[in-house]
Amino acid sequence: MDIKQRIEALRSLMRERGIEAYIVPSSDPHQSEYVAEHYTARTFITGFTGSAGTAVITLNDAGLWTDGRYFIQAENELKGTGVTLFRMAEAGVPTIEGFLKESVNKGAKIAFDGKVISVDYFRGLQKALENRKFSYELGEDLIDKVWEDRPVKPNTDVIVHDVKYAGRSREEKLAEVIKEMKNIGADHYVISGLDDIAWLLNIRGRDVQCNPLTISYVVISEGKCYLFIDSNKIGSEVRAALEKAKVELRPYESVVDFLETISQGIMLLDPSKTNTWVYSSIKIKTIEAMDITTRFKAVKNETEIENVRNAMVRDGVAMVKFINWIKKTIKTRNITEIEASDKLEEIRRAGENFYDLSFGSISAYKGNASMPHYHATKENQATIKAESLYLIDSGAQYLDGTTDITRTLAMGELTEEERTDFTLVLRGMIDLTMQRFLYGTTGSNLDIIARTPLWNAGLDYKHGTGHGIGFFLNVHEGPHRIAMVPNTIKLEKGMIVSNEPGVYKADKHGIRTENLVVVQEDEKTQYGGQFMKFETLTLCPIDLDAIDEGLLTNEEKNWLNNYHKTVFEKLSSYLDGEELEYLKKATRAI
Amino acid sequence: MDIKQRIEALRSLMRERGIEAYIVPSSDPHQSEYVAEHYTARTFITGFTGSAGTAVITLNDAGLWTDGRYFIQAENELKGTGVTLFRMAEAGVPTIEGFLKESVNKGAKIAFDGKVISVDYFRGLQKALENRKFSYELGEDLIDKVWEDRPVKPNTDVIVHDVKYAGRSREEKLAEVIKEMKNIGADHYVISGLDDIAWLLNIRGRDVQCNPLTISYVVISEGKCYLFIDSNKIGSEVRAALEKAKVELRPYESVVDFLETISQGIMLLDPSKTNTWVYSSIKIKTIEAMDITTRFKAVKNETEIENVRNAMVRDGVAMVKFINWIKKTIKTRNITEIEASDKLEEIRRAGENFYDLSFGSISAYKGNASMPHYHATKENQATIKAESLYLIDSGAQYLDGTTDITRTLAMGELTEEERTDFTLVLRGMIDLTMQRFLYGTTGSNLDIIARTPLWNAGLDYKHGTGHGIGFFLNVHEGPHRIAMVPNTIKLEKGMIVSNEPGVYKADKHGIRTENLVVVQEDEKTQYGGQFMKFETLTLCPIDLDAIDEGLLTNEEKNWLNNYHKTVFEKLSSYLDGEELEYLKKATRAI
Repeated sequence: MDIKQRIEALRSLMRERGIEAYIVPSSDPHQSEYVAEHYTARTFITGFTGSAGTAVITLNDAGLWTDGRYFIQAENELKGTGVTLFRMAEAGVPTIEGFLKESVNKGAKIAFDGKVISVDYFRGLQKALENRKFSYELGEDLIDKVWEDRPVKPNTDVIVHDVKYAGRSREEKLAEVIKEMKNIGADHYVISGLDDIAWLLNIRGRDVQCNPLTISYVVISEGKCYLFIDSNKIGSEVRAALEKAKVELRPYESVVDFLETISQGIMLLDPSKTNTWVYSSIKIKTIEAMDITTRFKAVKNETEIENVRNAMVRDGVAMVKFINWIKKTIKTRNITEIEASDKLEEIRRAGENFYDLSFGSISAYKGNASMPHYHATKENQATIKAESLYLIDSGAQYLDGTTDITRTLAMGELTEEERTDFTLVLRGMIDLTMQRFLYGTTGSNLDIIARTPLWNAGLDYKHGTGHGIGFFLNVHEGPHRIAMVPNTIKLEKGMIVSNEPGVYKADKHGIRTENLVVVQEDEKTQYGGQFMKFETLTLCPIDLDAIDEGLLTNEEKNWLNNYHKTVFEKLSSYLDGEELEYLKKATRAI
Repeated sequence: MDIKQRIEALRSLMRERGIEAYIVPSSDPHQSEYVAEHYTARTFITGFTGSAGTAVITLNDAGLWTDGRYFIQAENELKGTGVTLFRMAEAGVPTIEGFLKESVNKGAKIAFDGKVISVDYFRGLQKALENRKFSYELGEDLIDKVWEDRPVKPNTDVIVHDVKYAGRSREEKLAEVIKEMKNIGADHYVISGLDDIAWLLNIRGRDVQCNPLTISYVVISEGKCYLFIDSNKIGSEVRAALEKAKVELRPYESVVDFLETISQGIMLLDPSKTNTWVYSSIKIKTIEAMDITTRFKAVKNETEIENVRNAMVRDGVAMVKFINWIKKTIKTRNITEIEASDKLEEIRRAGENFYDLSFGSISAYKGNASMPHYHATKENQATIKAESLYLIDSGAQYLDGTTDITRTLAMGELTEEERTDFTLVLRGMIDLTMQRFLYGTTGSNLDIIARTPLWNAGLDYKHGTGHGIGFFLNVHEGPHRIAMVPNTIKLEKGMIVSNEPGVYKADKHGIRTENLVVVQEDEKTQYGGQFMKFETLTLCPIDLDAIDEGLLTNEEKNWLNNYHKTVFEKLSSYLDGEELEYLKKATRAI
């Protein structure tokens, strides 16, 4: 079936049930950003493969809402499907709610699979559409009925995440969370976030591509921890470790039966992560708040940070080998985008403690890189030539840390425009790295620092400047981020965040330079207070061949030279021959 | 009665009624920031005269909560009163809710005058204290019973605000608001904000010192506007103008009876401005949102902005005359802080279209200026000598605009520390003025620009960088502001905002440099979008005697020289003799 046929099949089910609109988000039952194949319902029904987006199918229309990162990609992927692209946050483009108000009759029935919709999302929808008197049906996954060869639910083995990496044992973490539950006044606590669960219990899996997670729920009830998970995923080592920590195993889907039996006390839940199916099984009073585990896991402990520093050396060495290879090879022959990212993956895989990639690499040449989340495919990819700019955004899951790095590389002589844009992006990245800030500052306060050099040149990038990142966990991890949109999370010592401004010019080039940084304490002063600063974790040269030195301030130039000095010091002992020579040249002072 | 006696008298009333805690905010029934004498209950019961703060009196304790602007002042004013100062937002200092949780028995009765508490505030209190099962009594103003010589309610004449100043007639404004009510889906609308009412009906008064307001409510019901106001405040001209616009007059306190009679349709209200007394009289379904008038009035029209530009010339001329006077006089004799501010007031009053000051001037020498909201009194003031720094923060209400300006002036030779601090503050002010930003940027995004030069030197100021300002209305006007705290209001073309970073060193000096700026459109670019910029409105030299030129960047120096060139061009034709000579010297290029 092609997309049109799938949509028609869905519509005939909708008509049978008297449903006028069916909403298909990009999520799984745990509100994961990246989901297992089984949960890619939104891709199935629209053809759009990006990680963020929501489809709405009505009896006459089909629409996909996605954000600025994906406008170009979505436009391409939706061609011929009959699905209309709605560019979120652009002037004059209706929201999903606005669209439903206009396109669906008052009092109509709107439906979705309640397992993949969060409590927050459903409430927001209801509130925005209050006056339309819609009825809602949450009980049935209609996509499942249309999707004949749907992939099975993931079922990978769970592994123990060693305390030498995690820094804190699952017993310690459980005790801290139970203590915090007491502070909040909660007797029970249901955790839906897969990375929250992996962090809390020091376990990892492979249920979601590139995210080392295992599909499960946790309920902590009166001091006891229950893990709801398919038992065939649990080997003897994991079972023993969990038993030692007094974690009781229960079947995955039995979480709702378990919750229904709790009849006393107060239940803590995070309405942004709990789905409506789980929520409707809670019969007692609730406290709604951000997951305790989300707050705790965002602040990396000293062991985790030291581990990340080690992982960064390995990742940097892999990047240098790759950059040396591509810079050398391109002088003699063309290279496809996939060959390049495969080569980098091959180098990374050979590194110690390698577990997986942390996301599908973005290997993008020239105009392709103007789509911030472009993914080359074997059938549809560019050939890199000895000119212009090539962007590689990639990362790995190591047992001792998650990496995420973007470098944009000169493949030959650059135009002045390419050089200027590259340098302005770099200035934004450096200025944010150098920015000192008072404790209490949020990512919304900081974002403008990275944008200012670009804004002064009339440029901007339509994405946030930085995202939090997990420790051997999700490559995107909240609650903090660096973006213009309001975010009330103070940047705490130990939070890791990416720093990745960019410039995107359709059909010309895309430039992004991304390092990971960790928040550290700076001095405490009498007339200021506790100041904070960023320590750069990523170790990889920034392409001097692409820089217009004249555009950098002295301070920026000093930062770059110092950074390159550090990169050389940390990486040089792991390289030799031509690769060491390349590193030396690539980290020379300018 | 002294403060201790007042508190004891209140406690005996509390005991009679079984009340364990009584909350006294700083507000009037309209949630005004500055209030008429009659409504200064919090000052009456604590002695603290600052504009922001809340008192809580329990049977055994008395506390005052205020923010960083007022820490030093409150500490001084509360001495000997038995009232404890709670420094809001400082580490380890309980919030009012935290204090009530600790100090008041579970299930106890908490009371306050419901007329001066907003719906939002009451709800927040209830929610935070949910688990304590307190009961609340909102019906009685106990302070009124203790306050024997309480000032009467203000009763000043209302004047017409001419359309040549306002730019839009009250008929046009009413039509726009009624249209927007339709968009929102509201049939009725109660407006409590005094500046909202003054803006909407193009009327002004003198009910609140320095704020040209008249105490009243407005209800718009099914297309008709009702003004609830004491009729003896309305002269024939105003009455005729309001009648022409079909505005019906009703007695002030009858607003609740009127609201009670409305039995059909939907009522719009702003829960941050509506008090619980008014709210409890609404019997129909409500929509809660920011006042339409608040949104509309924040965006100044072209006529208003052109008027402000004119008012700024007059205000700048007054400032130059004052600065010339104080710089000259201090060489021959000392001057008291009050003499200085009286002198400035005298000069301003002589200007065309002068109506009132826009707030009580802050005339503060040396260490006194380290209290950002210090107010000298005849009994308690410093004598300015020919050394160190003097700060004057002042402004006026003109028929054609509201001004607010701070200048810090060298009274003689400065220390290196004074000079450095002055220049860093100036850098922050200039950097923010020069900042170009994309449409969609909020004040929370921008704030860091003004702080960065100070943060890099370990300094900070414990207040926002800028506040919105009214047009011949309140000197503080939302909803936009420039501050670290989250603010979701996009800066729109036509919004006026202050730009006033500072440095405060207790017992040494306080420095602040403040200009008003208006948001204007900058260029629209292909790879960025619509950019915005600030146009500076304030016209007054910045004291070159206090600058350390070496600390300014070339860009900052250019800005300063261009600004001074403009100041000279706009003001010079209104000055002559020694004053013109002074202006020439004060605006020279550096």
